[in-house]
Amino acid sequence: MIKVAVYGYGTVGSGVVEVIDDNNKLISQRIGDEIEVKYILDIRDFPGDKNEKKIVHDINIILDDPEINVICETMGGTKFAYPYTKSALEKGISVCTSNKELVAAYGPELLSIAKKNNCSYLFEASVGGGIPIIRPMNTSLAPEHIEKITGILNGTTNYMLTKMSREGSSYEDVLKEAQDLGYAERNPEADVEGFDACRKIAILASLMTGKTVNYEEIYTEGITKITSKDFEYAKKLKKSIKLLAIAENKDDELTAMVAPFMIGEEHPLNGVNDVFNGVYVTGNMVDDLMFYGRGAGKLPTASAVVSDAIECARNLGRTLDCVWKDEKKTLADRKNKEREFFVRTDAAQKDNALSFFEGLSDVSIDSDEFAFITPKMSEREFDDKIVRLDKVKSVIRVEA
Amino acid sequence: MIKVAVYGYGTVGSGVVEVIDDNNKLISQRIGDEIEVKYILDIRDFPGDKNEKKIVHDINIILDDPEINVICETMGGTKFAYPYTKSALEKGISVCTSNKELVAAYGPELLSIAKKNNCSYLFEASVGGGIPIIRPMNTSLAPEHIEKITGILNGTTNYMLTKMSREGSSYEDVLKEAQDLGYAERNPEADVEGFDACRKIAILASLMTGKTVNYEEIYTEGITKITSKDFEYAKKLKKSIKLLAIAENKDDELTAMVAPFMIGEEHPLNGVNDVFNGVYVTGNMVDDLMFYGRGAGKLPTASAVVSDAIECARNLGRTLDCVWKDEKKTLADRKNKEREFFVRTDAAQKDNALSFFEGLSDVSIDSDEFAFITPKMSEREFDDKIVRLDKVKSVIRVEA
Repeated sequence: MIKVAVYGYGTVGSGVVEVIDDNNKLISQRIGDEIEVKYILDIRDFPGDKNEKKIVHDINIILDDPEINVICETMGGTKFAYPYTKSALEKGISVCTSNKELVAAYGPELLSIAKKNNCSYLFEASVGGGIPIIRPMNTSLAPEHIEKITGILNGTTNYMLTKMSREGSSYEDVLKEAQDLGYAERNPEADVEGFDACRKIAILASLMTGKTVNYEEIYTEGITKITSKDFEYAKKLKKSIKLLAIAENKDDELTAMVAPFMIGEEHPLNGVNDVFNGVYVTGNMVDDLMFYGRGAGKLPTASAVVSDAIECARNLGRTLDCVWKDEKKTLADRKNKEREFFVRTDAAQKDNALSFFEGLSDVSIDSDEFAFITPKMSEREFDDKIVRLDKVKSVIRVEA
Repeated sequence: MIKVAVYGYGTVGSGVVEVIDDNNKLISQRIGDEIEVKYILDIRDFPGDKNEKKIVHDINIILDDPEINVICETMGGTKFAYPYTKSALEKGISVCTSNKELVAAYGPELLSIAKKNNCSYLFEASVGGGIPIIRPMNTSLAPEHIEKITGILNGTTNYMLTKMSREGSSYEDVLKEAQDLGYAERNPEADVEGFDACRKIAILASLMTGKTVNYEEIYTEGITKITSKDFEYAKKLKKSIKLLAIAENKDDELTAMVAPFMIGEEHPLNGVNDVFNGVYVTGNMVDDLMFYGRGAGKLPTASAVVSDAIECARNLGRTLDCVWKDEKKTLADRKNKEREFFVRTDAAQKDNALSFFEGLSDVSIDSDEFAFITPKMSEREFDDKIVRLDKVKSVIRVEA
């Protein structure tokens, strides 16, 4: 019998219990052994909840119980999750997590503690919710030099951008709507400023290179400056505007960035709408792949945690290896990256724009402003030139 | 040192050798041991080829060499691949294959021989080329009751349909072009009649249910009757026409079918064009997922074979379990499935059509024919009614 403890009875944690209970027969078959949740760690009580009796407040009840084989950590944050995960791994208990903050901050340390103690630290649910991406990167893509990962990794902002695109709504209106629907937090910063996507691309870039990418070093822009006018242009240009998290590894030079981009209608990520996420991966042998699904939500995320728990149960007493090793990967300067840029400025700036950005394409749709797409140029060159232009209303990168 | 033997030095086999050679350092790192190809089995000689000295003609040289840990079977067909795979597994040597005919015909038997001999039989490359789908179904989706799989599983026909859609070309013209480009065989039957997609959906349906689905029982229609006129309608209806392989499992009733379908612009499979494949999976917890990539081609398919070889190398002496067991799954009658149908007939048939298919939507674009979409009805009801209608030019199912 596989006995599971769940850290945190919030949205994802209660989802984990629900998946293990509702699909119990099937999951037990697939493990080749029965499985049940024995404890749920939470500071709260849940009187009347059907799992009330499984709630414990003391971590040591779990850590001292030799029956516990697997822990699902769905607490979020690092303050408690970090020491509680560490203690479990040190006792040889495998931990599966949905906690991207913890993985981005302490991933390689926790992986190496797991290895020393013949157990596993798995984090499928930390990126892309229910989308299988971490395990495929560790296994299916093991033969690949991964050249580029382009992800729509944040469901909240993708929902907002999809709404703006379809309905012509303003940023403020869709934010309010997303908050009312519970898709966005009252303090939406982590989503709209791109911080959540930044941690996720740091995790993927670490798997891509096998070394630790520090999320704090990744250049990150959010979607707060995107307007309905930008979407009018996007539509005319047959493009969509998406918050992309990009990591590129060419000749062992890694660049990474989170920012809004215009992408063409033909790009497979163009069809990733609403709260869905998509991860577009290019390998040197397999070429282009895309993984698509629900990037958040109780049951999809819980399903990913439980898939990790099943893998741990199938591999008791051994470590499921991760390609990510505890060695720092320094990011190359994003300013060397070349691309096109979409710019909107005052109509009066037309002559300046034409002289600074030689070879630009005029894409203006209104007489009161001048809008253009630059030729391909480095971020450095663009940064140097754009500061000389007055009354810039919008800058959006263009993804090839 | 992991020593690999490759069965068959054709397109995929030579790709396997290329992937292992070109990405050797990386692959060795990820295994934690060096890897090399020791033998290549083929009836032909390859004078001047850089791997000439690795070619052997006698299977026993491979089977009797205790250094061989893993075999990559890329011969295709079953006549030789079946006994050669069986002999390897009986000796405890893991086999990784791209051979869908063999997997569809003998999968469960070979899996159980592997289990008895503490080795593995893996077949990631048998469906979807380079797309990770078999391993995710065995691991990432292990907690899921998979309710439906909808796949674009054949690159040749998808290339042809994409061409017809974009260029208004006829079926005959695109077939010739696909043959000239080497995408289609001189005898294109396996692709255009849907037989290839049928074997692949049989494999996926077996993984979905954990029991063996016989591909010969799956109702299969090809794309040979699709005309450029059908695409005119599709465009007007904001749909595309795709050869879909569908398996649905509701209340343990499994239905499966391969046929051309109209799908809406918003469906994620709508963006799967050219030689790409897509597999859309719905689970009871994770909801909708899609896996997208190159469904064929030397290096993408070889990469999938090598990813399996890496897994075998990481798990020497043990069996990587497969959810597919050796027990027959009987298909439910496809005639109970309900859906809408697109029909084109002679203009003179309008009154008959209106009386047989009450509630139809008239979608005619020409005065010389009558085209309509039926209300949702069972395949049985449709079959009974459509035979009463004369001069039917086209019938295409509509996917919701």
